[in-house]
Amino acid sequence: MNTTVNSIPGGVCAARGFSANGIHCGIRKNRTKRDLSLIVSETAAHAAAVYTTNLVKGAPLTVTKRHLTDGQARAIICNSGNANTCNANGVEVAEEMSTLVGKALGIPAEDVVVASTGVIGQPLDIAPIAAGIPALVEGLGDHSDYAAEGIMTTDTKKKEIAVTFTVGGVECRIGGIAKGSGMIHPNMATMLVFITTDCAISAGMLQKALSTDIQSTFNMVSVDGDTSTNDMVTVLANGMAGNREITGEGEDFTAFMKALNTVTVFLCRAIAGDGEGATKLIECTVAGAADEATAKRVAKSVICSSLTKAAMFGADANWGRVLCAIGYSGADVDVNRVDVAFSSPAGRIEVCRGGAGVDFSEEIAKKILLEHEIVIEIRLNSGDGQAVAWGCDLTYEYVKINGDYRT
Amino acid sequence: MNTTVNSIPGGVCAARGFSANGIHCGIRKNRTKRDLSLIVSETAAHAAAVYTTNLVKGAPLTVTKRHLTDGQARAIICNSGNANTCNANGVEVAEEMSTLVGKALGIPAEDVVVASTGVIGQPLDIAPIAAGIPALVEGLGDHSDYAAEGIMTTDTKKKEIAVTFTVGGVECRIGGIAKGSGMIHPNMATMLVFITTDCAISAGMLQKALSTDIQSTFNMVSVDGDTSTNDMVTVLANGMAGNREITGEGEDFTAFMKALNTVTVFLCRAIAGDGEGATKLIECTVAGAADEATAKRVAKSVICSSLTKAAMFGADANWGRVLCAIGYSGADVDVNRVDVAFSSPAGRIEVCRGGAGVDFSEEIAKKILLEHEIVIEIRLNSGDGQAVAWGCDLTYEYVKINGDYRT
Repeated sequence: MNTTVNSIPGGVCAARGFSANGIHCGIRKNRTKRDLSLIVSETAAHAAAVYTTNLVKGAPLTVTKRHLTDGQARAIICNSGNANTCNANGVEVAEEMSTLVGKALGIPAEDVVVASTGVIGQPLDIAPIAAGIPALVEGLGDHSDYAAEGIMTTDTKKKEIAVTFTVGGVECRIGGIAKGSGMIHPNMATMLVFITTDCAISAGMLQKALSTDIQSTFNMVSVDGDTSTNDMVTVLANGMAGNREITGEGEDFTAFMKALNTVTVFLCRAIAGDGEGATKLIECTVAGAADEATAKRVAKSVICSSLTKAAMFGADANWGRVLCAIGYSGADVDVNRVDVAFSSPAGRIEVCRGGAGVDFSEEIAKKILLEHEIVIEIRLNSGDGQAVAWGCDLTYEYVKINGDYRT
Repeated sequence: MNTTVNSIPGGVCAARGFSANGIHCGIRKNRTKRDLSLIVSETAAHAAAVYTTNLVKGAPLTVTKRHLTDGQARAIICNSGNANTCNANGVEVAEEMSTLVGKALGIPAEDVVVASTGVIGQPLDIAPIAAGIPALVEGLGDHSDYAAEGIMTTDTKKKEIAVTFTVGGVECRIGGIAKGSGMIHPNMATMLVFITTDCAISAGMLQKALSTDIQSTFNMVSVDGDTSTNDMVTVLANGMAGNREITGEGEDFTAFMKALNTVTVFLCRAIAGDGEGATKLIECTVAGAADEATAKRVAKSVICSSLTKAAMFGADANWGRVLCAIGYSGADVDVNRVDVAFSSPAGRIEVCRGGAGVDFSEEIAKKILLEHEIVIEIRLNSGDGQAVAWGCDLTYEYVKINGDYRT
């Protein structure tokens, strides 16, 4: 069995039969900023999605859920600059977006996934969207990068990836784009992520793959502890690779899961590393937990700790804050068995063993923590459970961005 | 029944029979900063305490718990600059502190409450403490302010209060000091708070009063979501007011609870308003919840939201973030019934009704949010449950303080 996963260019347009575009339609004032994106499959595609668990849900999610009840979709429309959430006419506007896209593409409105991201609580004007759709459709092509730009809010980098993998001897492709940055603390779903693949896979197995994968990927990311109202991950699979359709567990499904996981882990790291104001990607690995749930709880508590995040910003090896976050995580941990080390491309240093500090060189620790990708390694020495979580440091810039986001 | 509670000066020395002091003994490098505090009752006193729920517990808490098993204590010793937590010999050092204080005061070591606050994971040197205790005891007097200073870490203001109240026609006094600032997210206990009263009350009822009170006071405060390893609230009651001892529920206990609550709410507000880097005290009031638990969950979620906190720093009426925090609180709330208003000494403005935005003047909202004490008023319109929580804004200064706290 060939389980190799190789990177290729093209993002959401890497898979056969997918095209994309992104334009500035006028929701945002800045004319250089794309604010409307479209991804289209030229043939029918199976679709799967997961959504935020926030009780306050963006209107687009309500509409998308309804459209995906048949496990089918062919297009994804998404605007930035306005979340279309907590508005009196939000659902109406989201439905209108689907209808307009459906008409322009000659497909049913029910085959359109609709998403929005931006400020909560302000009415979304359909006019610039309606005016922009003809140009958006006209310009459809190999433009994953435009689509990735069009969904960005406070993101500083566009996030896209694509890989090839093999199912039953047939080469398949899968790619994705994401927006993240702020209000990132997914729970059962996440930020906006759109994934496309030409692999043939049934709607049921596609949903199963996605729902399983996010438990150890997007649900293990936190930028600021605020679970967004508009989180959504959607996958479209149009089957154009020509492999025998995956309809159950087995080797082929495993290969698909691995490729999907390559895409989602890449996007998780990209989202955490580009967290609002972040200067560093923080990865917390937990090993030796009594079980996986314990490992996850500990890892997530550490990457969510404001004090640990601020210490990472200051390149300060203040491991006591890591211990503190383990202690209040709610996980059943023997704190007298905990070992902690910091590592980065500049090296690795152990700072705590058996719950107590060990002598270490502050100078070397500083050098390690001045890097842009830091790993906080935790060993609980109580079993085989392990987990990874991703976050970022807490910086002046986070406060600046969020002190006056709307104006 | 006289239920009047009046403010008086004196802090923890306001109650009859209590003296205090605070000195610089040398744990901190800055010689102008007091780092060792002592509070003493001249007669036997009943004692009650509540402690952090963090699994990583400061060594002083282990020793204090043991000393308070008989419900008696006469002195409280507390150092700042080092938390005496996650050290190999922490318990030994905490015991030595009690022994030294006991000897100097001529009381059993078991009657000493011991506490520490500061950096986690560095050994606490007993030498400066041992050398400082004679001068600390020598200078005991009406020095609540010195004691309040000696327990400060990144606090910018000392926190003390005292009030008089009446039990069975007899005037009693109760006062307290606190340190807060960072790592503040109490859960079943809190930061360091020391309260003294001359009211006669049994050890059992004293513990009951404290354990009940903190559920709606210290457990409703959050500065940064990090639950400290060293949180503790202790009350000493020496009975010197001469009232008939409170030994059960009733009018007298109610009067005591009211006075205690006046002290604890004052200290909660002082701690939240002096949160690390804070420029504003944020109070979140929730009314109309299905029950009190729901109200508490919602109030606490809102004051913990990094995005809401940053918006308050920027005086930005971004109420969508308040709705978002209500939505992910885990409380069962009908989001379509939620009303939100902001108020402060500069006025009041409604910003959301029935889960959707209402037209409001951004100019007036800005004026209201530029004040230093902001109230976020939430009505859930689903019952009679209510709650209040206290927090602060998230500022550049918070990041600065915590980016390099140790060095």
